[in-house]
This record gives sequence, structure tokens and C-alpha cells, in this order.
Amino acid sequence: MRGLKGNIIFTKDFGKYEIFKDSYILIEDGKVKGIFDKLPEEYNQVEVKDYGDKLIIPGLVDIHLHGPQFPNIGLGLDKELMPWLETYTFPEERKYSDLEYAKKVYRKLVLELWKNGTMRSVIFASIHLEGTKLLMDVINEAGLGAYVGKVNMDRNCPDFICEDTDKSLEDTEKLLKDYGSRYERVKPIITPRFVPTCSTKLLKGLGELSRKYKVPVQSHLSENKGEIEFVKELHPEARNYASVYEAAGLLGEQPTIMAHCVLLEEEEIELLSKNKVFIAHSPNSNSNLASGIAPIRKLLKAGIPIGLASDISGGHSLSMCSVMIEAGQVSNMKWLESGKTEAPLTTPELFYLATKGSGAFFGKVGSFEEGFEFDALVIDDSDLTVLKEISLEERLQKFIYTGSWENIIERYVSGELIKEPKI
Amino acid sequence: MRGLKGNIIFTKDFGKYEIFKDSYILIEDGKVKGIFDKLPEEYNQVEVKDYGDKLIIPGLVDIHLHGPQFPNIGLGLDKELMPWLETYTFPEERKYSDLEYAKKVYRKLVLELWKNGTMRSVIFASIHLEGTKLLMDVINEAGLGAYVGKVNMDRNCPDFICEDTDKSLEDTEKLLKDYGSRYERVKPIITPRFVPTCSTKLLKGLGELSRKYKVPVQSHLSENKGEIEFVKELHPEARNYASVYEAAGLLGEQPTIMAHCVLLEEEEIELLSKNKVFIAHSPNSNSNLASGIAPIRKLLKAGIPIGLASDISGGHSLSMCSVMIEAGQVSNMKWLESGKTEAPLTTPELFYLATKGSGAFFGKVGSFEEGFEFDALVIDDSDLTVLKEISLEERLQKFIYTGSWENIIERYVSGELIKEPKI
Repeated sequence: MRGLKGNIIFTKDFGKYEIFKDSYILIEDGKVKGIFDKLPEEYNQVEVKDYGDKLIIPGLVDIHLHGPQFPNIGLGLDKELMPWLETYTFPEERKYSDLEYAKKVYRKLVLELWKNGTMRSVIFASIHLEGTKLLMDVINEAGLGAYVGKVNMDRNCPDFICEDTDKSLEDTEKLLKDYGSRYERVKPIITPRFVPTCSTKLLKGLGELSRKYKVPVQSHLSENKGEIEFVKELHPEARNYASVYEAAGLLGEQPTIMAHCVLLEEEEIELLSKNKVFIAHSPNSNSNLASGIAPIRKLLKAGIPIGLASDISGGHSLSMCSVMIEAGQVSNMKWLESGKTEAPLTTPELFYLATKGSGAFFGKVGSFEEGFEFDALVIDDSDLTVLKEISLEERLQKFIYTGSWENIIERYVSGELIKEPKI
Repeated sequence: MRGLKGNIIFTKDFGKYEIFKDSYILIEDGKVKGIFDKLPEEYNQVEVKDYGDKLIIPGLVDIHLHGPQFPNIGLGLDKELMPWLETYTFPEERKYSDLEYAKKVYRKLVLELWKNGTMRSVIFASIHLEGTKLLMDVINEAGLGAYVGKVNMDRNCPDFICEDTDKSLEDTEKLLKDYGSRYERVKPIITPRFVPTCSTKLLKGLGELSRKYKVPVQSHLSENKGEIEFVKELHPEARNYASVYEAAGLLGEQPTIMAHCVLLEEEEIELLSKNKVFIAHSPNSNSNLASGIAPIRKLLKAGIPIGLASDISGGHSLSMCSVMIEAGQVSNMKWLESGKTEAPLTTPELFYLATKGSGAFFGKVGSFEEGFEFDALVIDDSDLTVLKEISLEERLQKFIYTGSWENIIERYVSGELIKEPKI
């Protein structure tokens, strides 16, 4: 048993902060035991680290990003999805057959995740089996948590990155066998890139693997108009885009994340809701690539679990604060667009999505309720407040909107203090 | 005569980079003399500072921000304009009758402008004459350039911040007399807050002052639907919001900036174009306060001069890179909204707006053409590029999208090296 002391803030319920000023949080076996304004007598002997006036908040969770696109962040952000993939993404991703290159990039990526306080993430690697393992090794070494997927794609992509269907499935199965239970916090995830680049045979094979090994699934859905039209051409038999995944057993039979979901049809919304599929809301990416604004308020009301995502390198920043800001901004635009029917997202709602909302994909992660993994950031915001008494809630808002990674002075995952990874 | 050497990038024409790899830029009397790939023999004796592989770009220019709102950045960003003013803005602005408070805030503000590479800015102070002078003193001391306005407002605002009309005009005239030619780079500007809070008498009086002293003008125009409706109620005699300023002689008789212009009528667009009124495009603010998206492509086509603005604290960041990113993102949304008729803004277009576009309000500022003031930033982007040979153009894009103030290693205004201001 150990304890931390400070100003503790988290969201148990959507949009509502739980605030414990100057309080104790006790951790047992890496999990939250409880929060106390005074330490009960029975815990008098517990070692407590006192963080004084600093903020203690849950670690941030990013549920959709592309590891090998890290060198591309900030580049090529004036193209739409399909030409952007051709010009920037695929040529970069081919390089990850080179493990020396992969190691250099992935180490920098993991350092940046650490810096930004992203304690857990759900990641697309590349098509390369060994490169994917390496990324999992690097994340594990750093002590962070992640689901990492070997990307599958066997059609409509350049030769240099197009897989043979059987080999794609074999490599995926190898990963599941080798790395399924290798690490405590870093696990594989089935990762068909998206329908346009995956044959039905490949999708069905991946569905079987996900059932056989009970492994979660991630992919992309309804990001961009051109993409959706392409899927309709490819699958005239399907009712809609989402049902192509469903037919392959890839839509919620195991825990599933679909990134984007900007332009869902009503039937697709029902399908995702019924199957409890997570949506990875990636507002920076959707704005940068001119995809549109996902109707998050509406999707929330439909009961769909939602998390936030950087989606680098469609997104230009790994900072989940940047993602929260843009999610708020586009929710304001959506409110206008909807004739003021779909209410904007408030700051505590955004914070929930980036912590407990995203964290739910990992289980009991993203909150400080009893039994949750103790993933946490300690925030020294003393340089952010200018000459003004502000509440703890406002201090957190200021950190989100005006802070930087340098305000994060300590990071915990499952109760373990995580030091800066070496690169 | 002095010289700098490095990778020189600027935009002479809208949307087109001028790129001089590993070149010399010569400066005479604070102004650009020329750019050379090899130093001509006649300049052999000129002292050259060699910045190696670093980027040399024009200083950034912010043409609309509120100095006294600096302590509020990042706060209260889930309200619309009118309630936000009542709750956050006015109570903060009243404090600037206290010069000790004002000095502390303004010094921090100026330090942040410096950090972010904003070498010139156009600023709303508060209603307080002495506080406004003090802000001008602090900016001048730091060596930065600015127009600073004492805010005028005499109706529809809380008592504690509402001026007597005559006193408001008197104080303004005092500022023009005292500070009109006190400083080289820091000048006063006539600053009616906006129509809702300024009586016709006050507006007309300010129009007279601007003519009498040949002083430029700044205000707000058509930011928010509620605001526009309120102006219509207040001025049933006016054809539109802009014409209220015009009737008072405040719309282009002297150089004029109108902030926002999200929801202009066609006639107003013509009026601004005819009068060459600058629009301060403030996308972060317009997104944060759910105002909407200014139709920048359309306004550019109408021949209206446009600059970019942080508009703190409606905007949450003083970084002009953050403003460029959001301006690009909302231009993508506008493109979709317009049925793909109003093209998105490209990165070199955004860069132009933040340098030469904004700088034009100061005269020959924001470019490295011959005769322009040598306002410049030296960018060390070595930590931004990850294992990839990228072009100078891409390096600048990466700085904009992924850099921070720490990448700016030197700053110049009119040829003078500007050191970190003391606070």
C-alpha cells in the first residue's frame, strides 16, 4: 500500500468532475484503494508522497494512432484522405521492414507519448510482423500500456505495401501466439486497415483469428465521403460500410474500436450501439484532412462508447490536450451546423472522453474510482496561473488549454512510477 | 550594414514561398537590403552571423488580441460571446485601474508574445488611460512593435466598466497627444469596443479623433449572431452593422482593423473591400465561442486585406502557429460547408496571412523583400525532424504544426536583436 497527496481530479460520470482538494489517494497492487481527506488511522504507516498544491489526474488515453506515421506529423495536411494515403502514408510505412529504422522511430514515438502523458494507447503499426513486435517491445520497456496491431491489407494499395492474403493471416496469427501473453500491459489487436484495402477473405480470416484468440479489433469506418463511395462500389452486396465488418465478425464480437465515424448512416449507428463498438473520435485528423465533424453528441446519446484519439499523422499532435481542444471546437461548430440541437461538449465532458471514455477499452482505466488501475499524471501548473485565484476545475481547464508536456512532472501506470524512456 | 546567413523562407505573393537555401540576407538601417546566394564582392567586409542549417523566417504578427484578458486564457471556453463577456471578460478588465496589477500582467503578456515569436501585435488594452500607457511602455521597453488602444465603451456594460462619454473621448485624446509620437514602434490606435457598447456620440467622437490625429482604428464586427441582432435592435436606422462604423467615420478613413467578420452580409463585404478594411481572422476564438467560420477564401477574393489573430482570451493561445493550424482546419470545414466551392487554405497561404498579411497593417512588415523592416525569427527545428530528409518547405510546415516557442532561438525587430524581456 502506498499513497499520494495532492489535489485529485477525475470524472466518474460523464461531464462531472470529482474534486478532492488536498487529499490522499491510496494505491494497493497498482489499483486505487480509496480517496480520503484525512488518512484513516489504520493507514497511518502507509508511505505517502506529498505533491503539495499540484494536481493529480488520471493518465491520458489515446485510442487511435499510427506508429509508423510519426515521422510524418505536421506534413502534407492539405490533402484529403485517399491522395494523402498514396502520397505520404504508404511510402513511409514501407520503411518498417527495416528494423533499425523502426527502432529509431518507435523509440522517439514512445518518448513523445510519455512526454504528453499518454499512458495507454491503441496503435496501428505497419504490415510488418517483426516491426510490430519491436514496437510492442519498446512500449513494454517504457512501462506504458498499449494495444498494438500488425496492419493487414491485401488490395487497392501500392505493391510495395500490399500483402498476400494467406501470409497476412499467418503473420497475424504468429503475433497473437508469440505476443498474446508476453507482456502484462502491451497486447496485440487485430488490425485490418479498412475495407478498401482488405479483401473479404482477409476480413473473414481476421474475424476468425479474433474469435479463436479472443483478441480485440480495431479499424477505420466512415471517415471520408470518397472512401465511403469506394466501399459501396466494392461491396454492392452490403447494406452499408459497417455491415462489411459485421459480416466478417469484426464488429463487436470481441471489443472493437472503429476510428472516425464522421459520416455514419442511422442504421450503422444502431449497429455500433447494439454491438458496443468504441468510436475513436479524432477531431484534429478529421479537420486536417477535411473529412468533417463526427456527431459526437448524437453518438453518445445512441449509447455508443467513445474515446479520443490523436490519429497521427492525420492528426498533427500526440498531445491529448490538443485533441480535447479541437474536439471542443468542432463540437461548437457541430452545434451551429445542427441548428443548436447537438449541444457542444463541455470541458469536463472532453476530459472524461480522454480519460475514462478512452480508458474503458482497457478495462478499469481512466478514473480514480476504487479498483481502477492507478494510471496518473501529476501536474505542476504554477506557471499557468497568472495573478488570479482560480478553482481547481479552472486550473485543470487551464492546463488542458494552455499547458504543455512540461507541466507534467510525474507519470504512473498501474501504480508504477514511469521514468523517461531512453531513446 | 549587417548580414545573416541561413535557410531563408518568406512569402512575397499570397500562397507562394520564396525559398533561399543557405543564403545571405543583408540588413541596412533595420531594413532588408537584399538576399544573395553568394555575398557580392562589395559586401565582403560586412559582418555576417551564420545560422548554419537553421530557418530564417519573418516575425509573426498578431492583429487582434486583448491584453487584459491574458489571465483568462484557457478559461470559460464553453460560453457564447455575450454571456462570456459578462462572466469572464468585464470582471477581469475592471482590475486594470490598478497599475501594479496591470504591470504584472502586461509584463507576463509581453514575455509570452516574445516567446511565441509575435514581433508585432495590435492590442485592445482596457478603458483605463494610465493602464494603456503602461502597456505601451512595457512593449516599447521589450523592443517589440504594436498598436495599442484604450478601449472605449459607454453603454450596455456593467457600471464598473462603463465610461462617461465625454471622459472616454478626453482620455482617448490625452493618449493620442501624449503617446502619439512617444515611441518609434509602439503607437496608439482608436479602439471602440464594438457597436453594442458604444453610443453613436462616442463613435462619432472617436471618428473625429482618428481624423484629427490621423490614427488608425480597430474594433469588432459581426462575430456572433446574437451580437448582430442586438446591433440591429440598437440601430434600426442602419443598413447593416458595418455601416454604423462607417457613419461614424470609423471604417477605413484611417487604416482600420475589424476583428472576426464571421457573418458579414454581401453589402458589408463590398463596403470593407472598397474601404480596404483589414479583417483580423481569429479562428481559435471563433471556434471556442461557437461563433462560426469566417469565409476567408470569399473575403480574399473580394480583395479585402486579411491578417491572423489570436484574440486572447476568446482564443486560448498566443501562438500564431496555433492560429495558423486552426485557420487551416476551419478552412477545410468551410470548404465542405460551401459544397467544395471555397477552397481550403494551404500552408503557404496560412503563413502569408500570419506574416505579410498581418504585417501589412504596419507598413512594410512581414516579408523579406527589399525595403521591408527586418523582423525575423531564427528557427532551430533539429528536434522536429525525425529520420527523414525533408524539404525546407516541409521543415517550415513541421515547425508550424509541431514546433513550440522553444524552437525559436533568435528574434529580430527592425534589424535589432530582441532579448528576452525581464518580468
